[in-house]
Amino acid sequence: MTTSATTSCVSFDALHTFTRDAFLAVGLGEADALTGADVLATTDAWGVFTHGTKCLAGYLRRLKAGGLRPAGTPRIVGEGGAWATVDGDSSLGLTTSAFAVKVAIAKAKQQGIAYVGVRNSCHFGAAGYYTWLAAREGLIGISMANDIPSVAAPGSRGAITGSNPISYAVPAGRYRPMLLDMSTATVAGGKVYAARMRGEAIPANWLVDAQGRPTTDPSCYPQEGALQPAAGHKGYGISLLIETLSGILTGAGFTWRIGSWMWDDGTQPTHHGAAFIVVDTNAIMPAALFASRMEALIDEIHAAPVADGANKLRVPGEIEWERYAESMRTGIHLPEDVLANLRKAGEISGQNPGWLK
Amino acid sequence: MTTSATTSCVSFDALHTFTRDAFLAVGLGEADALTGADVLATTDAWGVFTHGTKCLAGYLRRLKAGGLRPAGTPRIVGEGGAWATVDGDSSLGLTTSAFAVKVAIAKAKQQGIAYVGVRNSCHFGAAGYYTWLAAREGLIGISMANDIPSVAAPGSRGAITGSNPISYAVPAGRYRPMLLDMSTATVAGGKVYAARMRGEAIPANWLVDAQGRPTTDPSCYPQEGALQPAAGHKGYGISLLIETLSGILTGAGFTWRIGSWMWDDGTQPTHHGAAFIVVDTNAIMPAALFASRMEALIDEIHAAPVADGANKLRVPGEIEWERYAESMRTGIHLPEDVLANLRKAGEISGQNPGWLK
Repeated sequence: MTTSATTSCVSFDALHTFTRDAFLAVGLGEADALTGADVLATTDAWGVFTHGTKCLAGYLRRLKAGGLRPAGTPRIVGEGGAWATVDGDSSLGLTTSAFAVKVAIAKAKQQGIAYVGVRNSCHFGAAGYYTWLAAREGLIGISMANDIPSVAAPGSRGAITGSNPISYAVPAGRYRPMLLDMSTATVAGGKVYAARMRGEAIPANWLVDAQGRPTTDPSCYPQEGALQPAAGHKGYGISLLIETLSGILTGAGFTWRIGSWMWDDGTQPTHHGAAFIVVDTNAIMPAALFASRMEALIDEIHAAPVADGANKLRVPGEIEWERYAESMRTGIHLPEDVLANLRKAGEISGQNPGWLK
Repeated sequence: MTTSATTSCVSFDALHTFTRDAFLAVGLGEADALTGADVLATTDAWGVFTHGTKCLAGYLRRLKAGGLRPAGTPRIVGEGGAWATVDGDSSLGLTTSAFAVKVAIAKAKQQGIAYVGVRNSCHFGAAGYYTWLAAREGLIGISMANDIPSVAAPGSRGAITGSNPISYAVPAGRYRPMLLDMSTATVAGGKVYAARMRGEAIPANWLVDAQGRPTTDPSCYPQEGALQPAAGHKGYGISLLIETLSGILTGAGFTWRIGSWMWDDGTQPTHHGAAFIVVDTNAIMPAALFASRMEALIDEIHAAPVADGANKLRVPGEIEWERYAESMRTGIHLPEDVLANLRKAGEISGQNPGWLK
């Protein structure tokens, strides 16, 4: 285990080990603890700190309270040639989702494409981790999940859908996989809350107030109001496709039938759903041809002229992969809010490493 | 054939027959002419006039010039358990796409999900027609296509991706299918052009100028500038997934390798790509259970409180289905720009019905 000299920079390996040991301390098996640690530490290495180890303490609390079952075992409860339904057994959403995408990868290798729906899951962290699992094996991964409503519909007073994230990852030859991970809201609630804490106004397309009117004043959030969907009816429409594939078709909870993994009774399951679609490009096109065509697309975008004052154009994921390389080289610079949550995780799991002080 | 008393209102059947006869006049077979007519007349019945019979004259010109082949025959050139690649043989994009989604429906009924990619196609009209074909049979349809670049990437000077549309349709029990059909640009180029014609300013998130800067002045478009992607990097990211599944993985053209179906040499194919993903919900969940869950979702949204001054909340497609019912009841009120294009189609095909005068 290597750690940096400062309190805010930690090596990937040290963070991974801390997270694994925290999961072990609340009763997860070795394999599940490793999976959970890999999801969260990788997410931090990408610089997506809202969905990395910041979430660990919350997961530990639910695992101790029993709403998340440390010995839960996700299993296939229905399947056909190119599809399966997985019941997560209310185990850690991270391990259930990794299990499910691996089922989808195996079936896609047989049939060219596969859909795996998940019920009885929980918050699954960063959607992009699971699509990367597919892209690492040379397949296209698509992942999505539902969540308790926090986002308005056009014209609604209050939340209608969850922030319902969607991710894809596409293998790209000599380039790192093209990787998008986005919510279907305009911005994350955390950004609105941060503006409130700083006393700043927000753009008019981020939030609606308690009457459903667009507002630049974040002071009502999160007690009242709701996030706005990205691009209005377009983000709303995509969030309902995600709700259908993750919630309706899986037998999971949907909209208000889902529990908050952070705030609701820790002894109860949250009934989140998720869905994974994997496409085996190698079945459809020679691998070298697909790679060269992806490279040509990315080369063309990199060479395109930029707007006044803009930097080189990127494809989705490039910023995250640059941060990832830097994280692996020099360690991960964790923000203070993540460190504060990791200290709570350390208390719960009886760990107090030097880098966390 | 029934027609209305006014020149701007036509029955669905009359419009369908006119369109079929126009396709027959330039050499399409009976089945293809009927398919093409059904796509375009249905699109007008939904009130999506930008993608209905307004496009007919342009298709006829290409069919006469030979870039679209009247006797072209789409065929499967590669397939596996749950996937196929279709070569459109540069036949009408509407018939190629209807063929491809039917292949996807048949395979999804076997495997639970299927992907069919299309190359050597052309403009396919409204993406929502093909997803509706799936939903009519009780399956979830997803369709998408690429197009010649017209949309900027965040930070680009000029267009990077096409308006790359995506549609889904989900069967919904006693309700009409939930149906979204959207481009990944903020707005259609036609809206920008219409504002220019009226001399009006546009919102700052519609267009970038020749230097790649957001502008409220539409006067440069379409000669210069580019549309902005919906929700910035989110619309850009989704458009690249569409480019991957429609263009890269199918062997079709992508980005600037695609020809303009309206402006480029009519004797040459345009090399558009498309992709269709179909999910057979009946394989995965009992039909009555899926229907009741979709109804519960829609009932919940209909009952949700609305913002001050807003109407009842709707799910995607409800407005189009209301217009469709009205179109079938009282006829379709075609706007003048559609009528002007239909007169050109009438000249090409030697038709001059009373309702078109």
